[in-house]
Amino acid sequence: MTVFQKTIQLPTDGMCDVQDVTARVERIVIESGIITGTANISGVGSTLGITTIEYEPGAVADLERALDQIAPVHDNYAHNQRWGDHNGFAHLRSALLGTSRTFPITGGHLRLGTWQQIVVCDFDDRARQREIVVTVIGKSAE
Amino acid sequence: MTVFQKTIQLPTDGMCDVQDVTARVERIVIESGIITGTANISGVGSTLGITTIEYEPGAVADLERALDQIAPVHDNYAHNQRWGDHNGFAHLRSALLGTSRTFPITGGHLRLGTWQQIVVCDFDDRARQREIVVTVIGKSAE
Amino acid sequence: MTVFQKTIQLPTDGMCDVQDVTARVERIVIESGIITGTANISGVGSTLGITTIEYEPGAVADLERALDQIAPVHDNYAHNQRWGDHNGFAHLRSALLGTSRTFPITGGHLRLGTWQQIVVCDFDDRARQREIVVTVIGKSAE
Repeated sequence: MTVFQKTIQLPTDGMCDVQDVTARVERIVIESGIITGTANISGVGSTLGITTIEYEPGAVADLERALDQIAPVHDNYAHNQRWGDHNGFAHLRSALLGTSRTFPITGGHLRLGTWQQIVVCDFDDRARQREIVVTVIGKSAE
Repeated sequence: MTVFQKTIQLPTDGMCDVQDVTARVERIVIESGIITGTANISGVGSTLGITTIEYEPGAVADLERALDQIAPVHDNYAHNQRWGDHNGFAHLRSALLGTSRTFPITGGHLRLGTWQQIVVCDFDDRARQREIVVTVIGKSAE
Repeated sequence: MTVFQKTIQLPTDGMCDVQDVTARVERIVIESGIITGTANISGVGSTLGITTIEYEPGAVADLERALDQIAPVHDNYAHNQRWGDHNGFAHLRSALLGTSRTFPITGGHLRLGTWQQIVVCDFDDRARQREIVVTVIGKSAE
């Protein structure tokens, strides 16, 4: 059993910038040498989210529209009133979607569907430099 | 420390078919021999979700109604327009709910509440054969 | 590689009582002696949720308001009609938000953002005594 951890540095544009990080996570899984186990992908911060989606512009636009309805950019947020911030919507989206997911590793690879990509959604109201921490836990050989 | 992984083959009816997999996950936990650790339950695909709920018809109906409001079956989805698909709602629900959860194992059993069942929700617009991967990580004895 | 598990006993007021448990989880991480790995935080039960948020009254109020819109306290819940309960909204919120999250551990500490706190949200319609299980998995030294 072993653990392997690496951080992805991810520049984003904010404002619901949705980026596919599957290939970078997969490279870390391969580098870990772990054959069977799990990979946890966690974003550091309170204004981003991590999930999976078919990464094509249509499905991504549908996700953004749904989040705009659940947590509109412009609304009467108590967070904004209290701190003079403008990113209350981003905190809310992050709390609802979650900043972390864990996926299985089988045969040395991420076990995802063909149309299932891991995405980082930066909800903040400005460009950010994000840290995405990948922690792989499992065994190196059968 | 050890890792044990097994896949549940789950036929579903699609269209928000919600199935209780708790007993099957618990059997895998027992088979693993792991006493203290975690069990990750992940669905392979981008049109399903995994969560916990009190598995009785009322609470399940309430969940389906809420998802119908958040991501209606019939709506103007960019995913559908782009690909000629009809399951844009299913991709959206999957991205929002998530396809994976991780629970503790204590004393060789899943540590869940009495009324807390692990459910797979198949949102796709047709019957599917689903793969649910259970990965148990922990130690075999105190 | 090692696993360390401990339960936080958490009295709550219910009705969307949102409590910050970050410091208590961090103490368990330190007690575990694990330097690199993951910490899974899981609530036992079907009427609570766990997520991260900037723990200040504004952002917490925004989260409560959003959940009131997605799953209002007073609505026509099938769960309530079937069982004579009044907490259908609590089951729904728990299923949507999830009862468990997993975060990385780096250098012996939780790897979270400065404004990212781990919160337990008790959605039930009465005060509860909650069990929050923290499972730390990883290696003790580099």
